[in-house]
Amino acid sequence: MILKYMLNYQADLNLAFQALADPTRRMMLDRLTRGPASVSELAKPLAMSLPAVVQHLQVLEASGLVTSAKVGRVRTCQVEPKALRATEQWIADRRTMWERNLDRLGAYLAETADEPDPS
Amino acid sequence: MILKYMLNYQADLNLAFQALADPTRRMMLDRLTRGPASVSELAKPLAMSLPAVVQHLQVLEASGLVTSAKVGRVRTCQVEPKALRATEQWIADRRTMWERNLDRLGAYLAETADEPDPS
Repeated sequence: MILKYMLNYQADLNLAFQALADPTRRMMLDRLTRGPASVSELAKPLAMSLPAVVQHLQVLEASGLVTSAKVGRVRTCQVEPKALRATEQWIADRRTMWERNLDRLGAYLAETADEPDPS
Repeated sequence: MILKYMLNYQADLNLAFQALADPTRRMMLDRLTRGPASVSELAKPLAMSLPAVVQHLQVLEASGLVTSAKVGRVRTCQVEPKALRATEQWIADRRTMWERNLDRLGAYLAETADEPDPS
């Protein structure tokens, strides 16, 4: 159970970071954090064909960062903050761990500096 | 100047997110946040050949997330927190923007709910 959860978690992170590794997809995500948008609204500022935009959107949807729903002939997209938070949390945890170890090293160096020089 | 800066920034983010999109590279980074390590120390818990580990290390170094230095015959690797912080900041900015817009929508809905029903 736990192993399956961990494998899913790792697979989700793979897809989310992969989705974020492209500047066009980051631009689309950037637009969507300001509110839901249709596919053509998403495509407007991008210098590429609509099928190319749809392909990027599919990568974003597969990663769980974006969801979309079709009403009539218009597909509206929106950010799914849960996946965004998971990626942020993964990085923040590592940064915190690194900083804590750096603090510990600093404290150790300060302590040993106070000790009288044995030479 | 600003355009060149923005292009570099985007390229850096591409490489950093790309590096984070692989579970082996995340494991290596995870190990390095607990302190510097040699390449063989990094390779120990991984079920792969040393050349495969070195290849992953090269991706991490190209992304700026990790630096390494060779002293004698031992190459020691460490985390470069600047690149880690840049990726975290990019995600945090989008999440904050999204939450702010959600708050605004909530406030708007609460306000309009107080208004007398015109029907």
